[in-house]
Amino acid sequence: MLTIFKKRRPPVGARPGTLVVPEGAPTRIRVFEYDPEGAVESTPVSLDELVRLRDGARTAWIDVQGLGDEAMLRRLAEIFSIHPLALEDLVNAPQRPKVEEYDGQLLFIARTARLPSADDIELEQVGVVIGAGYVLTFQERRGDVLDLVRTRIREGKGKIRGGGAGYLGYAIIDTIVDGYYPVVEALGERLEHLELRVLDAPIPATLAEINRTKAQLVIMRRGLWPQREAVSRMIKQPTPLLSDDVRLYLRDTDDHGAQLVDVVDSQRELVNGLMNTYLSAVANRTNEVMKVLTIMSSIFIPLTFLAGIYGMNFADMPELHARWGYPVLLGVMTALGIGMLLYFRRQGWLGGSKSD
Amino acid sequence: MLTIFKKRRPPVGARPGTLVVPEGAPTRIRVFEYDPEGAVESTPVSLDELVRLRDGARTAWIDVQGLGDEAMLRRLAEIFSIHPLALEDLVNAPQRPKVEEYDGQLLFIARTARLPSADDIELEQVGVVIGAGYVLTFQERRGDVLDLVRTRIREGKGKIRGGGAGYLGYAIIDTIVDGYYPVVEALGERLEHLELRVLDAPIPATLAEINRTKAQLVIMRRGLWPQREAVSRMIKQPTPLLSDDVRLYLRDTDDHGAQLVDVVDSQRELVNGLMNTYLSAVANRTNEVMKVLTIMSSIFIPLTFLAGIYGMNFADMPELHARWGYPVLLGVMTALGIGMLLYFRRQGWLGGSKSD
Amino acid sequence: MLTIFKKRRPPVGARPGTLVVPEGAPTRIRVFEYDPEGAVESTPVSLDELVRLRDGARTAWIDVQGLGDEAMLRRLAEIFSIHPLALEDLVNAPQRPKVEEYDGQLLFIARTARLPSADDIELEQVGVVIGAGYVLTFQERRGDVLDLVRTRIREGKGKIRGGGAGYLGYAIIDTIVDGYYPVVEALGERLEHLELRVLDAPIPATLAEINRTKAQLVIMRRGLWPQREAVSRMIKQPTPLLSDDVRLYLRDTDDHGAQLVDVVDSQRELVNGLMNTYLSAVANRTNEVMKVLTIMSSIFIPLTFLAGIYGMNFADMPELHARWGYPVLLGVMTALGIGMLLYFRRQGWLGGSKSD
Amino acid sequence: MLTIFKKRRPPVGARPGTLVVPEGAPTRIRVFEYDPEGAVESTPVSLDELVRLRDGARTAWIDVQGLGDEAMLRRLAEIFSIHPLALEDLVNAPQRPKVEEYDGQLLFIARTARLPSADDIELEQVGVVIGAGYVLTFQERRGDVLDLVRTRIREGKGKIRGGGAGYLGYAIIDTIVDGYYPVVEALGERLEHLELRVLDAPIPATLAEINRTKAQLVIMRRGLWPQREAVSRMIKQPTPLLSDDVRLYLRDTDDHGAQLVDVVDSQRELVNGLMNTYLSAVANRTNEVMKVLTIMSSIFIPLTFLAGIYGMNFADMPELHARWGYPVLLGVMTALGIGMLLYFRRQGWLGGSKSD
Amino acid sequence: MLTIFKKRRPPVGARPGTLVVPEGAPTRIRVFEYDPEGAVESTPVSLDELVRLRDGARTAWIDVQGLGDEAMLRRLAEIFSIHPLALEDLVNAPQRPKVEEYDGQLLFIARTARLPSADDIELEQVGVVIGAGYVLTFQERRGDVLDLVRTRIREGKGKIRGGGAGYLGYAIIDTIVDGYYPVVEALGERLEHLELRVLDAPIPATLAEINRTKAQLVIMRRGLWPQREAVSRMIKQPTPLLSDDVRLYLRDTDDHGAQLVDVVDSQRELVNGLMNTYLSAVANRTNEVMKVLTIMSSIFIPLTFLAGIYGMNFADMPELHARWGYPVLLGVMTALGIGMLLYFRRQGWLGGSKSD
Repeated sequence: MLTIFKKRRPPVGARPGTLVVPEGAPTRIRVFEYDPEGAVESTPVSLDELVRLRDGARTAWIDVQGLGDEAMLRRLAEIFSIHPLALEDLVNAPQRPKVEEYDGQLLFIARTARLPSADDIELEQVGVVIGAGYVLTFQERRGDVLDLVRTRIREGKGKIRGGGAGYLGYAIIDTIVDGYYPVVEALGERLEHLELRVLDAPIPATLAEINRTKAQLVIMRRGLWPQREAVSRMIKQPTPLLSDDVRLYLRDTDDHGAQLVDVVDSQRELVNGLMNTYLSAVANRTNEVMKVLTIMSSIFIPLTFLAGIYGMNFADMPELHARWGYPVLLGVMTALGIGMLLYFRRQGWLGGSKSD
Repeated sequence: MLTIFKKRRPPVGARPGTLVVPEGAPTRIRVFEYDPEGAVESTPVSLDELVRLRDGARTAWIDVQGLGDEAMLRRLAEIFSIHPLALEDLVNAPQRPKVEEYDGQLLFIARTARLPSADDIELEQVGVVIGAGYVLTFQERRGDVLDLVRTRIREGKGKIRGGGAGYLGYAIIDTIVDGYYPVVEALGERLEHLELRVLDAPIPATLAEINRTKAQLVIMRRGLWPQREAVSRMIKQPTPLLSDDVRLYLRDTDDHGAQLVDVVDSQRELVNGLMNTYLSAVANRTNEVMKVLTIMSSIFIPLTFLAGIYGMNFADMPELHARWGYPVLLGVMTALGIGMLLYFRRQGWLGGSKSD
Repeated sequence: MLTIFKKRRPPVGARPGTLVVPEGAPTRIRVFEYDPEGAVESTPVSLDELVRLRDGARTAWIDVQGLGDEAMLRRLAEIFSIHPLALEDLVNAPQRPKVEEYDGQLLFIARTARLPSADDIELEQVGVVIGAGYVLTFQERRGDVLDLVRTRIREGKGKIRGGGAGYLGYAIIDTIVDGYYPVVEALGERLEHLELRVLDAPIPATLAEINRTKAQLVIMRRGLWPQREAVSRMIKQPTPLLSDDVRLYLRDTDDHGAQLVDVVDSQRELVNGLMNTYLSAVANRTNEVMKVLTIMSSIFIPLTFLAGIYGMNFADMPELHARWGYPVLLGVMTALGIGMLLYFRRQGWLGGSKSD
Repeated sequence: MLTIFKKRRPPVGARPGTLVVPEGAPTRIRVFEYDPEGAVESTPVSLDELVRLRDGARTAWIDVQGLGDEAMLRRLAEIFSIHPLALEDLVNAPQRPKVEEYDGQLLFIARTARLPSADDIELEQVGVVIGAGYVLTFQERRGDVLDLVRTRIREGKGKIRGGGAGYLGYAIIDTIVDGYYPVVEALGERLEHLELRVLDAPIPATLAEINRTKAQLVIMRRGLWPQREAVSRMIKQPTPLLSDDVRLYLRDTDDHGAQLVDVVDSQRELVNGLMNTYLSAVANRTNEVMKVLTIMSSIFIPLTFLAGIYGMNFADMPELHARWGYPVLLGVMTALGIGMLLYFRRQGWLGGSKSD
Repeated sequence: MLTIFKKRRPPVGARPGTLVVPEGAPTRIRVFEYDPEGAVESTPVSLDELVRLRDGARTAWIDVQGLGDEAMLRRLAEIFSIHPLALEDLVNAPQRPKVEEYDGQLLFIARTARLPSADDIELEQVGVVIGAGYVLTFQERRGDVLDLVRTRIREGKGKIRGGGAGYLGYAIIDTIVDGYYPVVEALGERLEHLELRVLDAPIPATLAEINRTKAQLVIMRRGLWPQREAVSRMIKQPTPLLSDDVRLYLRDTDDHGAQLVDVVDSQRELVNGLMNTYLSAVANRTNEVMKVLTIMSSIFIPLTFLAGIYGMNFADMPELHARWGYPVLLGVMTALGIGMLLYFRRQGWLGGSKSD
């Protein structure tokens, strides 16, 4: 069963900035501090340590996992001067993917996608706050998506350690967008598989799978489109947080977003085609069943009638006493049966599901 | 039965500004007067008291419920210099959601949605007039949507008492937009429920519910889209009534509006998919019925024919007098019947509704 | 039978400005001359009288009904300096609704809609020429739509007599746009009615009515959309003929146009849904028929087979001579029949059209 | 059989400007030379005569029919300084309708439509080159569309002789656009006719005609839309070749183009509706057939069973020897048959194709 | 089996610029060096030779085929200062078709299409880098598309040798775009062929072919649309690499791109129509089968009943002993059978698949 839409949101009419934290999701903070020379990874003992990071010369990534501790989140927002509305967007997930500028900070709301099973699609919001010299990310669950970025910082290859907060923000967003590729490819393979199954086994289970895939594509599209829009707008945002170089890289991310939207749209068209194929395969099956019935009935009902004739008890039925009466009738019946068979064969009804 | 469109409107050709008040809906006015220090709630004895409010230093909310008293409404419009066309929009509901600026005032026409039952959707127009220091709201029925805002003023938490008329206007509009979330979620749950039912019980009642849900989504969309557009345009309206701060908050409302439109659009796609599933489930059922008929007929019609043969009265039918004639025939019949059953089983027709 | 498109147009390749007047539609001119003090209504004896009106201080409405007299129309165009292309648009109906500015004049091509019967939709073009101090309207038939404006001038209530030619033009266009409301409401009611009928009586006549309604909506949309566009563009037209006040009123008309387009679009979506419901209702009916056939056949064909067995003439059939042979067989048959009935009941096939 | 797309084009990778002339289409040139005083029509003996026309004071129309003579076309292009790409567009038909400006010349690629039979739609490209003082038109076949313009020049009524090359260009384009009206009207009539037939005779031939009409509308749309766009862009082209007056006339052509696109779009919606009606009419027919089968079977199968009972050869069947056994059974059978008939009548199955 | 989407991409989270080279595709470089006087073709022994080409006076085309050698590609990028992101786009195919400007270079990502068989569509990315005086192209497979350009350079006809790098870039892109024409025409012919087959042989194989064609069109569209967009944007790119003349030629390419999109869109509409035709043809076939069954059953079931009557063993059945009993019954039966046949003929059921 696929959940179509479920948002953690305050009751209607609550004042702006009200947070709805998920239960049982303790907030854990990890910190990366790095410059081209090296990277230090730590878990802050108290939030006040972070003040130093905010103002430090090295680039800091404050990685928040689990959004269950409202007090901690509010204190964090205070330290990094995160606007209450931004905090609300970060915590009350899912928001529509978007980019917003609050004085001196860029807020990017992204959404990751995973297919844990054929039945479900798991979307998770990742909130990214890019400031001068620091990046904060907010995730509800301990996600493994950003592990890939963590590894890159640890290994220190490429530009990542020297790129500053803007580049780190790009790297995170790029990783999230690229994370859709395996999902899209998995859905593509499932479609190819379904295309074969729909003709072989047009059973309700197949239809249910088609429907589920369609719903997953609809839900993917709902996230991908605004996310791509957000990347496009981020490139054009006149903020000093993003260097020209980073904008160039974001253009690449934007292209990937556009490609993903294209592919998902194609897949939606194809899944609609599968629905039609399914309906027609069912109609074909009914047709096959009908043919069997018609052939059986058309052959035996007339023969039974003939047998009925000579089962009548009229006193004077000369055929009954004719010498070759019985064998002649059997011959006529055989001829009739074969005749019908030949007729149906000429109609092309006798190939079963193979030829037709 | 869902009413598709019903508008309270003057006869065609009436002069602009003609009001059509609903019958049996006496106009009741409630007043909130507040500043950061405190809030006073009252019911004015005469409309002339309101003149003081209009010009007072505190923020005033004139909350009009029931639009049945044309004289009162006209006097109110006079006191607050509401343009006749604005008054017409406020009274002759439903108008298309929109924002308009009349000198010194912003008119916002909003629409709330409620699902009182699975069969109906209840939309109500709420008209909001934002002036310098005061806000007027016009509702046909005693709605409980705005109660949430009233409570916030009474409790005085957050920025609401200090935010002035612009902020109050935002709070009202935001509450109305957010009020769609429970409706959208209820429809989402109904869709999930329908997805199960459509395969289990593809009966006309299910189809009727699918259709009703679709119509409700169409009607929701008709309100949501222009409402979101109106919020977007309000943000860009170059009016001194809205501070930069309020515009920032409205951006949040705008995001919610966009998310709601996205979700409703996804739901409309899914409801169309359900329609297809329904049709195919009916086709599958026909298929099942056909199979039963075909199996029964294909087995017994040939056997009956055989019985008919030996019911004939030919004088000379040696089998009839053969020693093992009868038991051999019974054996042949049994073999034939079992043969047919095996054939149908190999065709996969014998699983009933479970496997197929 | 609904006519999809029929235009009175000159033969292809005729030179621009060629008029095609309808036959049997004598041109009748009525004149309203008014200022805030009073209104005079007259029928001019000769067209030359109109020269005085063109240049007079009072606002003049020249109301042309019936477009059959080419000479008269050409003389009229000469007096009021109507551009030949404008005259062509006014006479060769229907044109696409639009607004155009020819030096010193605004030409507005509008279209009214009426539903004379369930089978037809009657669209009529009304051409409006707004000049400085005068308005000309051109209608093919003696329409009653503009009677509502005439009455308002006669009664002189509201702003109409003091508003000048621009306001009169607005009043006419507004009346035409609002004239769609009753049509849209009638179609809405028909849809609600059809929704009930489509499940009760999925007969071709119902489908034909659905199709007719769909075609009417398509035709309505074809007129409404460019008409709304024309009103929008008229508001922005930088012409001295329209005061700011009139533009404000036109904005109201524009809102109504947008609402009508919205509602018609919703109705089109719903009518498509009805088509699907119809198809599925027919499929359901086939299903019902099939069930009856299958139940009857499945019960009686095996029983007939049994009867056939004991109708055989084998010499040695011990059952035939058994003491309880006949009653036992009857008992077995009854049991078999009841068994089948129970089976079908468990399958849920015995509820007839009520439960399924 | 309708050809969906066939273009005369050079092999892929040929250098730009490569011409592909049709075979068996000798190029014929006719020349019109006119000024307000008179018009001279001639067939040039050699192409060099045309140099005089290019530079003459009178307006010249060089009317090229048949594009089979590459040498002649290249010489012509040389005389009138037609850009190689423009020449390619004129000869390698069909190009997408468009307008382009090459220094000092406007190139307009138009497409005419004709319905030679119900099965086909004949589109022909007409290329128009408007220069200072001359117009060249290029047509593949001897078309009769432009005859209408020729006649107008010969007769000399209206503005055509005094309008110069710009006006002539307009007159040609306008004639081509208006030439779609008869086609659209013919398709409209066919749709009305099909609407009746689809319910009366839902046979494959009807479906084939619906499909053909749909394909024709799709092909029409493919030409109409860019053609309308081209006219719109031509109006805005800042070229001295078109006077303000001509632009005004082109606005009229533009309106007609928009109206045609509207009508074709409506027709496409209606043809899709017809497809649905066809499918449902077939379903209805199957339903009718099923009813006949079910009624016949349900009445006679139980009766046959009864007859079978009393055809059994049990030694002891008291009914067989009862005095009124036979007539009583016949009575019971009749009663049963009538009972079934009444049942089916109550179900509304006995009206045949009339009531249902 | 059609592959819907398969991209060679680095693992998610890899740093930008990571290349994923295909296996077993050795990189081969060919060089064309030419000026109006002549063209030299060579295969460089070492990449360092290319430095001379980069800075030479003659136009150089470095034609890279096979993308399997990462070291070689990186060295090439170094020599020609290709941006790492551009290199990534060139190697990790397929990217979305696009144009990008990196300082002093234009990157154009194009996609060619081929139909190697009815079952598949083969798309290949061709990356084009246009610099000052040189063009690089990157292809995965040894393609024959660009052979056409090679031949033109060798033969030296037309402008190609004198046009510089910009013109060469245009020639390559134009050849790729025009390469879609044969594909589109082949699909058009297949559609025409399918239109005939769908009515003659509505078998699953036909449906599968329709679906395959639809998927191919969807995939084509996914490449064509952004490619056309890229050409449009390339024309407007304010780069000195493209002369006005080349932009004019690109406008032609742009027109072809627009025409291809139009045609593919039409074809998609028609293929959807075919799907409907298929469904209705299957329904028609079921109808035919049903008619045969109904006719056979309706004729013989009542007759069998009559035979059953006179097969009963009632002691007193006077008809059995009547003189003409048997022949009269046979007569009645014949009459009944013929009557039924006439009835079905009047219903139009006896034409078989020809008349209906």
